[in-house]
Amino acid sequence: MASENTQTKDNSLITTTRALLDNALTRFEKGTIAVSFSGAEDVVLLDLIHRLGYKVDVFSLDTGRLHPETYEFIEKIRTHYATPIELLSPDAKALGELVKEKGLFSFREDGHGECCGVRKIQPLKQKLSHLKAWITGQRKDQSVTRTDVPLEQIDAAFSTPENELTKFNPLAEWTSADVWQYIRVNEVPYNPLHDNGFVSIGCQPCTRAVGPQEHERAGRWWWEEETQKECGLHSQNVIKIIAN
Amino acid sequence: MASENTQTKDNSLITTTRALLDNALTRFEKGTIAVSFSGAEDVVLLDLIHRLGYKVDVFSLDTGRLHPETYEFIEKIRTHYATPIELLSPDAKALGELVKEKGLFSFREDGHGECCGVRKIQPLKQKLSHLKAWITGQRKDQSVTRTDVPLEQIDAAFSTPENELTKFNPLAEWTSADVWQYIRVNEVPYNPLHDNGFVSIGCQPCTRAVGPQEHERAGRWWWEEETQKECGLHSQNVIKIIAN
Amino acid sequence: MASENTQTKDNSLITTTRALLDNALTRFEKGTIAVSFSGAEDVVLLDLIHRLGYKVDVFSLDTGRLHPETYEFIEKIRTHYATPIELLSPDAKALGELVKEKGLFSFREDGHGECCGVRKIQPLKQKLSHLKAWITGQRKDQSVTRTDVPLEQIDAAFSTPENELTKFNPLAEWTSADVWQYIRVNEVPYNPLHDNGFVSIGCQPCTRAVGPQEHERAGRWWWEEETQKECGLHSQNVIKIIAN
Amino acid sequence: MASENTQTKDNSLITTTRALLDNALTRFEKGTIAVSFSGAEDVVLLDLIHRLGYKVDVFSLDTGRLHPETYEFIEKIRTHYATPIELLSPDAKALGELVKEKGLFSFREDGHGECCGVRKIQPLKQKLSHLKAWITGQRKDQSVTRTDVPLEQIDAAFSTPENELTKFNPLAEWTSADVWQYIRVNEVPYNPLHDNGFVSIGCQPCTRAVGPQEHERAGRWWWEEETQKECGLHSQNVIKIIAN
Repeated sequence: MASENTQTKDNSLITTTRALLDNALTRFEKGTIAVSFSGAEDVVLLDLIHRLGYKVDVFSLDTGRLHPETYEFIEKIRTHYATPIELLSPDAKALGELVKEKGLFSFREDGHGECCGVRKIQPLKQKLSHLKAWITGQRKDQSVTRTDVPLEQIDAAFSTPENELTKFNPLAEWTSADVWQYIRVNEVPYNPLHDNGFVSIGCQPCTRAVGPQEHERAGRWWWEEETQKECGLHSQNVIKIIAN
Repeated sequence: MASENTQTKDNSLITTTRALLDNALTRFEKGTIAVSFSGAEDVVLLDLIHRLGYKVDVFSLDTGRLHPETYEFIEKIRTHYATPIELLSPDAKALGELVKEKGLFSFREDGHGECCGVRKIQPLKQKLSHLKAWITGQRKDQSVTRTDVPLEQIDAAFSTPENELTKFNPLAEWTSADVWQYIRVNEVPYNPLHDNGFVSIGCQPCTRAVGPQEHERAGRWWWEEETQKECGLHSQNVIKIIAN
Repeated sequence: MASENTQTKDNSLITTTRALLDNALTRFEKGTIAVSFSGAEDVVLLDLIHRLGYKVDVFSLDTGRLHPETYEFIEKIRTHYATPIELLSPDAKALGELVKEKGLFSFREDGHGECCGVRKIQPLKQKLSHLKAWITGQRKDQSVTRTDVPLEQIDAAFSTPENELTKFNPLAEWTSADVWQYIRVNEVPYNPLHDNGFVSIGCQPCTRAVGPQEHERAGRWWWEEETQKECGLHSQNVIKIIAN
Repeated sequence: MASENTQTKDNSLITTTRALLDNALTRFEKGTIAVSFSGAEDVVLLDLIHRLGYKVDVFSLDTGRLHPETYEFIEKIRTHYATPIELLSPDAKALGELVKEKGLFSFREDGHGECCGVRKIQPLKQKLSHLKAWITGQRKDQSVTRTDVPLEQIDAAFSTPENELTKFNPLAEWTSADVWQYIRVNEVPYNPLHDNGFVSIGCQPCTRAVGPQEHERAGRWWWEEETQKECGLHSQNVIKIIAN
């Protein structure tokens, strides 16, 4: 399927990415760095790290509203790579208050910010406060908010005066085509939702399959503006856009 | 559809049930009693109470693994009856530890007890410790563990030395046929999973549709023994069976 | 699951049915008798005949609108019992005229009679004109139109002055529970739609899953009256009702 | 969504296509020319013709194995454009013989040629023998077999010594992106399967959704070679490839 040029480009991309991961995982010792796994195509990160021979901490944000298929996929990855995956759940009290007041679909009314805040950002914030670095699967081609994602950055959103946090985005230069070629060539397990038209995958009520020729981000929070389609994990991307 | 005899039986059943609810909701003042709503056909309880004119506290156990359809149904009930529904979520730390150690499907390996314990029983226990009484949708015809469910009982599982808890099971004498006749005649909203072969509905990974002529409980924890099919909410039913 | 009484009843039922099949398949020689297989739970007939050691002609009405699952099931039965299954298709010209004039869902407007006529009855009529006898899976408990179905009858609907046709209904006395016990005990392959709430199965646009406590026939032509729910294969049942 | 350049390109493309359709539908009088509608994104043809004000004969190949969604879509188009759609069905006898001998999934064993032959090509051949011209939705970008599709051609596969048949491919120069922009901008009804990852749509057992970054034709006859993925409607494309 891949022409020679593509192969060369891929190999170079993979070599660079491996070097970056190698660098990240030697600079930061185990316990101070972790991979944030979304349950979607960022499984490529886990595969690359696994093949490099590293054991790395992995966490996922379990919002309590993921697709059944995603829970099955996370379990599959756990056993396939023989790696524990820490699932971060929302604080029961904060979640209970939100839902009692606004119900289970408030994001349809007043935007996804509040729900993502309770279900994703607070658990993430707490987790990151114990880390020196984290690794994400963000890519420049994913959305208008990510076109400037660097390979490495100081995390402007989650660093605190006491804790400077480094953020690695090893897939920043990968295109969706690169990711899927890697998954297929290397027979990496993937979320079965991808076989049903899903490209970008988040929470069940806020994700849908995309139609032919639709951008992958069209399947996320489709009732909102393109520039708002960040759940807060990578909110510094939005800050930059606003600043520009 | 209903013959005259059925009508008479139904009317008598409904009259008795209303009287019981009336008694329960006057004996225990608001804030000390609540309905436990499972997101399935026990919606009948909410409908009966609503028609009696009571405003009652309602809670549901949000295990984080319910079907997307169940979350939508809970929201529908919230707006249909204009009633807040308190969702009880598992403790993030306890859940994180279980999942990190055993993954997301440990119940398939060593039984549903541990997972139900974290996702249902602990949140329920905490809630019930602040109540004097609760109302459930248990029915005698639901399973071999429920054939002796009384209309009212002291809750042997959740009462504490400091807090005697009363448990009402107003639907104990109702059959599945009674419940569904009530739902259809009164056009009560119901979980759309019931249109796809689901009868008894619990968590997504632990519930399946039942085939023709299968008992409804065959769709729950189908890899376990009939006598173990209680999640712990009604564990005193199991205690009794063992004692017999 | 089955108590001793049930076992006895079942064994007696099976013995009687076997004797009837034996009688039918010896009275009518191969080529003059055939089983009409609907792609649903009447697979029990094929299983009984197979175990008796007969090779029998089998046909199915392929209306061109069956569920994908039903086509897969028919194929499964073909290979499982190593038996050819003749599929009877509608006449292309007659079908083309109906659809060009009234579209693909005319049955929603003016009843299923015309569509069943072209897609089922005409092909069946042609087939039966070459037979002396046929075997069906009709049961008394299936619908209000079938309460008098005999084990054997002269087919009043499809006999002609030149050809008296005998019709065997070996499952007439079986209940749905009997059928499903047989399927489960004998591990007979069944249509996977039965795992999704479907009980009685016909064409895709005219069949739906039934809800809890609904009669199986509620899933067929649900926009029409109970007494009209025959597709014409067994129209003499309707004639009788009208006559009464 | 569309930049100015895209708009210009689109407008020019649409203008050219309209002119071609106008030319075709004036050169060949009603009754001698027809549109072949597949039930997928070639609905664009029907929309363009409708907006030009022409009434044109439309036919579809009803193989008897289309998706339920496709039948619903064809009906929707029939009513939306108030146009009869002639459905061409396979010859009952030929189909019966194939299925009795090889079952319902022979294409999985020995290729789709024989099944397409009976279900598509024979009915099409018969229809085309009464026409002087037909209009198809073929596009160059659809597959390796279609890269040379011209806007107009003599149909080498279906012309006979007695009947020279002209074939118009007005969408030959359109890309998938052009088609989908047209559908979305003009709110043309489309097959709901496109919302579930389906791009190219044919018969149910021979079509699947495609994954991220897969070519649309990967969803058709996925067990066969790319160069064989023509069902015979456009077999002259394959002839050319072989000749090259």
